[in-house]
Amino acid sequence: MQTMRAYVFDGVNDARIKEVTRPHAGVGEAVIRVTLTTICGTDLHIVRGEYPVKPGLIIGHEPVGVIEDLGPGVTGYELGDRVLVGAITPCGQCRACLSGSQAQCGHGGGYEAIGGWRFGNTINGAQAEYLLVPHAQANLAKIPHDLTDEQVVLLADIASTGFSGAESGGVRIGDTVAVFAQGPIGLCATAGAKLMGASLIIGIDGDNTRLRMAQRMGADVVLDYREVDVVSEIKKLTGGGVDVAIEALGTQTTFEGALRVLRPGGTLSSLGVYSGKLQVPYDAFAAGIGDHRIVTTLCPGGKERMRRLMEMIRHGRVDLMPLLTHKFSLDQIGEGYRLFGERLDGVLKIAITP
Amino acid sequence: MQTMRAYVFDGVNDARIKEVTRPHAGVGEAVIRVTLTTICGTDLHIVRGEYPVKPGLIIGHEPVGVIEDLGPGVTGYELGDRVLVGAITPCGQCRACLSGSQAQCGHGGGYEAIGGWRFGNTINGAQAEYLLVPHAQANLAKIPHDLTDEQVVLLADIASTGFSGAESGGVRIGDTVAVFAQGPIGLCATAGAKLMGASLIIGIDGDNTRLRMAQRMGADVVLDYREVDVVSEIKKLTGGGVDVAIEALGTQTTFEGALRVLRPGGTLSSLGVYSGKLQVPYDAFAAGIGDHRIVTTLCPGGKERMRRLMEMIRHGRVDLMPLLTHKFSLDQIGEGYRLFGERLDGVLKIAITP
Amino acid sequence: MQTMRAYVFDGVNDARIKEVTRPHAGVGEAVIRVTLTTICGTDLHIVRGEYPVKPGLIIGHEPVGVIEDLGPGVTGYELGDRVLVGAITPCGQCRACLSGSQAQCGHGGGYEAIGGWRFGNTINGAQAEYLLVPHAQANLAKIPHDLTDEQVVLLADIASTGFSGAESGGVRIGDTVAVFAQGPIGLCATAGAKLMGASLIIGIDGDNTRLRMAQRMGADVVLDYREVDVVSEIKKLTGGGVDVAIEALGTQTTFEGALRVLRPGGTLSSLGVYSGKLQVPYDAFAAGIGDHRIVTTLCPGGKERMRRLMEMIRHGRVDLMPLLTHKFSLDQIGEGYRLFGERLDGVLKIAITP
Amino acid sequence: MQTMRAYVFDGVNDARIKEVTRPHAGVGEAVIRVTLTTICGTDLHIVRGEYPVKPGLIIGHEPVGVIEDLGPGVTGYELGDRVLVGAITPCGQCRACLSGSQAQCGHGGGYEAIGGWRFGNTINGAQAEYLLVPHAQANLAKIPHDLTDEQVVLLADIASTGFSGAESGGVRIGDTVAVFAQGPIGLCATAGAKLMGASLIIGIDGDNTRLRMAQRMGADVVLDYREVDVVSEIKKLTGGGVDVAIEALGTQTTFEGALRVLRPGGTLSSLGVYSGKLQVPYDAFAAGIGDHRIVTTLCPGGKERMRRLMEMIRHGRVDLMPLLTHKFSLDQIGEGYRLFGERLDGVLKIAITP
Repeated sequence: MQTMRAYVFDGVNDARIKEVTRPHAGVGEAVIRVTLTTICGTDLHIVRGEYPVKPGLIIGHEPVGVIEDLGPGVTGYELGDRVLVGAITPCGQCRACLSGSQAQCGHGGGYEAIGGWRFGNTINGAQAEYLLVPHAQANLAKIPHDLTDEQVVLLADIASTGFSGAESGGVRIGDTVAVFAQGPIGLCATAGAKLMGASLIIGIDGDNTRLRMAQRMGADVVLDYREVDVVSEIKKLTGGGVDVAIEALGTQTTFEGALRVLRPGGTLSSLGVYSGKLQVPYDAFAAGIGDHRIVTTLCPGGKERMRRLMEMIRHGRVDLMPLLTHKFSLDQIGEGYRLFGERLDGVLKIAITP
Repeated sequence: MQTMRAYVFDGVNDARIKEVTRPHAGVGEAVIRVTLTTICGTDLHIVRGEYPVKPGLIIGHEPVGVIEDLGPGVTGYELGDRVLVGAITPCGQCRACLSGSQAQCGHGGGYEAIGGWRFGNTINGAQAEYLLVPHAQANLAKIPHDLTDEQVVLLADIASTGFSGAESGGVRIGDTVAVFAQGPIGLCATAGAKLMGASLIIGIDGDNTRLRMAQRMGADVVLDYREVDVVSEIKKLTGGGVDVAIEALGTQTTFEGALRVLRPGGTLSSLGVYSGKLQVPYDAFAAGIGDHRIVTTLCPGGKERMRRLMEMIRHGRVDLMPLLTHKFSLDQIGEGYRLFGERLDGVLKIAITP
Repeated sequence: MQTMRAYVFDGVNDARIKEVTRPHAGVGEAVIRVTLTTICGTDLHIVRGEYPVKPGLIIGHEPVGVIEDLGPGVTGYELGDRVLVGAITPCGQCRACLSGSQAQCGHGGGYEAIGGWRFGNTINGAQAEYLLVPHAQANLAKIPHDLTDEQVVLLADIASTGFSGAESGGVRIGDTVAVFAQGPIGLCATAGAKLMGASLIIGIDGDNTRLRMAQRMGADVVLDYREVDVVSEIKKLTGGGVDVAIEALGTQTTFEGALRVLRPGGTLSSLGVYSGKLQVPYDAFAAGIGDHRIVTTLCPGGKERMRRLMEMIRHGRVDLMPLLTHKFSLDQIGEGYRLFGERLDGVLKIAITP
Repeated sequence: MQTMRAYVFDGVNDARIKEVTRPHAGVGEAVIRVTLTTICGTDLHIVRGEYPVKPGLIIGHEPVGVIEDLGPGVTGYELGDRVLVGAITPCGQCRACLSGSQAQCGHGGGYEAIGGWRFGNTINGAQAEYLLVPHAQANLAKIPHDLTDEQVVLLADIASTGFSGAESGGVRIGDTVAVFAQGPIGLCATAGAKLMGASLIIGIDGDNTRLRMAQRMGADVVLDYREVDVVSEIKKLTGGGVDVAIEALGTQTTFEGALRVLRPGGTLSSLGVYSGKLQVPYDAFAAGIGDHRIVTTLCPGGKERMRRLMEMIRHGRVDLMPLLTHKFSLDQIGEGYRLFGERLDGVLKIAITP
């Protein structure tokens, strides 16, 4: 039995590189040799025990690699093909997938909440030398020759999620958009709003590096919540409120801010992962009759989503390289977690090379 | 100066029939002689001081009448035309109206939250002998000869609102729908879900009369929250949750119930008017990544909406007459308010004839 | 090697019952023992050589049956399960399917025009004792115990197609709808328009039996094109044109009629299969600046579509039994084709029992 | 009675500057002193008699000016306000406008095909010193101080129309788009596709100047139909067809090309004004079952549309100045028509200063 090195969660604050069994591909599956992956904020929550997974799990959900093994029933691929796999791996064949709710995939059956997110959550993830890809036919996206691993790795999760903030918000040509929090996902939401034709994009954060990066990703105005009253400032800038507000952090403060800056009839597009009770202030919500919409979205996945996003990189529509601030080898991943966890050195996203 | 009789709010729990000045039509306005109107739950909130309006205001927002006066600039109508006017009277010419958010009408300017609701809120209302209709060109809907006043009066508010619960929820052929609360608006939401092709409609209330009426309006299953655990029962009936849940009361309990019965990717269509803080339970919301949508809607108005709804009555698609359980003259309106306020005699909606 | 009886196309006007090899299930596939199927108008075109398929093909695409064999990778089913399979069998895992264009399925790869229609077109079909179902995980829809084979068989194609005429047309509460041609698909389009809340539905045909059936399926008004000028009559009935016109035959006349009765901004939803050049008359099209939409749709398939439609039957929303006018055994299928081809005895749809 | 100078159509090829009566504002109307306008291709068709209007009409429909007179019922404006008025002037209060079909405005009543286009078509237009604006409340868009007349004048028609090609086509992040014809409207459609997030934009024309400008407006690839087989080239570039094809000329060739390059399930967004019969080739249309959509759009108007587009200019999202290649005084307008008609000197759009 072959083994491989992988970053394994063994309990709260107890994760490390270990030698584990190497996967092989069953029916409809593939195995890729991971050539590049990342550390995500969610991984940090897992290691810290804030998001529970079962001990023994390999973490990570943003994989780029080379096909090493193809199970029966997977066609149109060859060993050696370089592929990107989304963080969300829909089966394409359950009720949810057939209804277009691929992130809520039920793996052949009905709907399952957050069921499309499996890597590093309910099955082994990408911070390893090899990765088993379920429903491979639906999830292996070949990488065009003119794109590097580094150029596409952030599409697997943060770009797909961030862009979906603008997409689910229904941003139209001429809309005003506010994006609350400018971490990696918020920065991609900012880029997404720009890509969809917003006229004015306002980025909000309390970190100078991120605010500068927000301008680079498309924000026309950035607001530091440590310095200004964000809600009143946005109302003034927009003459009464934005068309779309995107929440990209998952806190009561950012959610409430996003709701308070909406114009009547506006849309709050929420990307954050919340914990505890979320409060909807009666007044900000026009007592429930302001024709507001609150839309939540989990990262869209599947090979077609990845293909489309790779085309955006290819044609120069967006460049995610500035977000990839650091790089570590898999063996040094612990150091990467530390730097990422403490937000040192202006870190945004860390690349991991197995 | 001519006068008329009208039901005037003079302060909390202080409303009565008074003799007041009769309106006349200015530019773009019309005056109708009211032939039928109603008492709405909102009117009750106003009289009780739970929804503040300025003293001296005539209450009521569901008018049927005959054109008595037409101001300059109103064309295509004649004195004597029988018309229905929606509870919401958009101008058609402001930013909100031109963007399709007519209920958030800014009266020629920008967006104004709930700005489309003026009758009995910010201008005099329909519980009077005569009613001034603003933006008459956009709001006078001629009543076809084959329809009576009684057949159409409930379209002005409750049917337009109730149906919009299903419309904003995006009910599709084959969807399962739960409607929380079966008051007049919830009953119309139930009818709306049926009209749009829901396969299974579940009506929830705690009042036997209303549950029976829910079945008449289209519910396949009715659940009495006094007797069953509504959330688990609905999950069982639907194999995991409904596609669309409609909230039609405006309380934390009904809102939370509606959220808890949603399948991943489902839509909560909210019609209720809330007070105080609304809580979104983290678990019911899949931590914000269940691809849920929460959509709020204020009653769609304007003459075209009224025309379309009247066609539904004409062609027998829906019959609202069973909801019109009582009738009083304008002079007896106080008695109507008492009966309505105490929910006596199986009352659903009360017609008022000036 | 086991054999079975099947209706095989061997060349133009040369189709017959033959003994052929019985299929077995490979990876991701299933075999069902067919318990009920039908003859479709398309089958007739095939036999007559008007739609080319390769000789040796088994015809038919509306299957109900019992699972006889399950290939590797198909989960959640057991031998003996009673299932409905749509005429369109998407893979769920190609670019088209992952983008929601399941009828244009590329079988794991890109888009393929009409690629989702395989039964009796590019692979063996349902007029046989056994049927191989590709992409079984995405296409086997279990039939609820309280539904008979006869109740659901027409969902596989004509009901799914007909309803989609209204769905793609975007029929809304209060819309006026005209349905051109009242064959089985047009009748289901009529039913679909009713299900979605149309206020006035006008059915057009030149056959008395079909016009009567149109009324039964939901038409408020039926027009016999042999007797009235359909276009002017509809414009009169609707005060200027319908919101949605559905074409359900595939001829220049019906297409042009549908276009001519549209109001400005209206939608032509086209279901027919056309041959030759189709002309869009400049005037009917407002020179291309009337904000018209022309939308074409191929039958939506997949197990979730079938499940949803079966729920419509279960809850009494629609009854397709009146359309199933005749029944033949598989051995007598030739007689069925003759009767269907000559439109004898008021035939609408013919059931075939293997 | 005051007079003014205006360019008047008196018959085929008979248009000239004349002294005519100056308009004054009635109820709901305004008069603006025109400070900048343009010559449009449609104006040329009118002068040449290819699009019939009644003799005596003042031509032109792209006005920028200063409010000179305000009729009763117009509020929120002051004499001297600098405004942009769209080519389409919806009333906001008819069935069409209240349904969102503002370009098919019925002026207070029902739907009227192309009814929103009035300037220089059914009422006097903008090539004059003064212009009467109907439904002024819905149509006067104040120009921000930091924008010049030249920067915004092309929003009135060509930019609003061109962008709508991408909007009605439903361009999404990652789509491939082909734009047939790169005249002023096609160039704006190209810019619109870029604004909405297309990954690859292909511009088609047979004029070198326009192809170069197409690249400047956002085309990634330009194809000269004089040199390449456009259809096969696009299929090769896109691996099977584009997601959205935009037609921006109004000929059989461009329409058919746009249809032929569509992938299954794709959308043809048509902007052109056609004459004569348009043919839909059966094969390009997948016999009507390729899930294609053909969507036509007339220029969106109204003050809110204009406001939104001006915000796009303000925030540097698009720059239309390169399209404004020439400038003439109103007295020299005949010279402008000649240059424009003969397509001399690389002309794209001509500004006229009264």
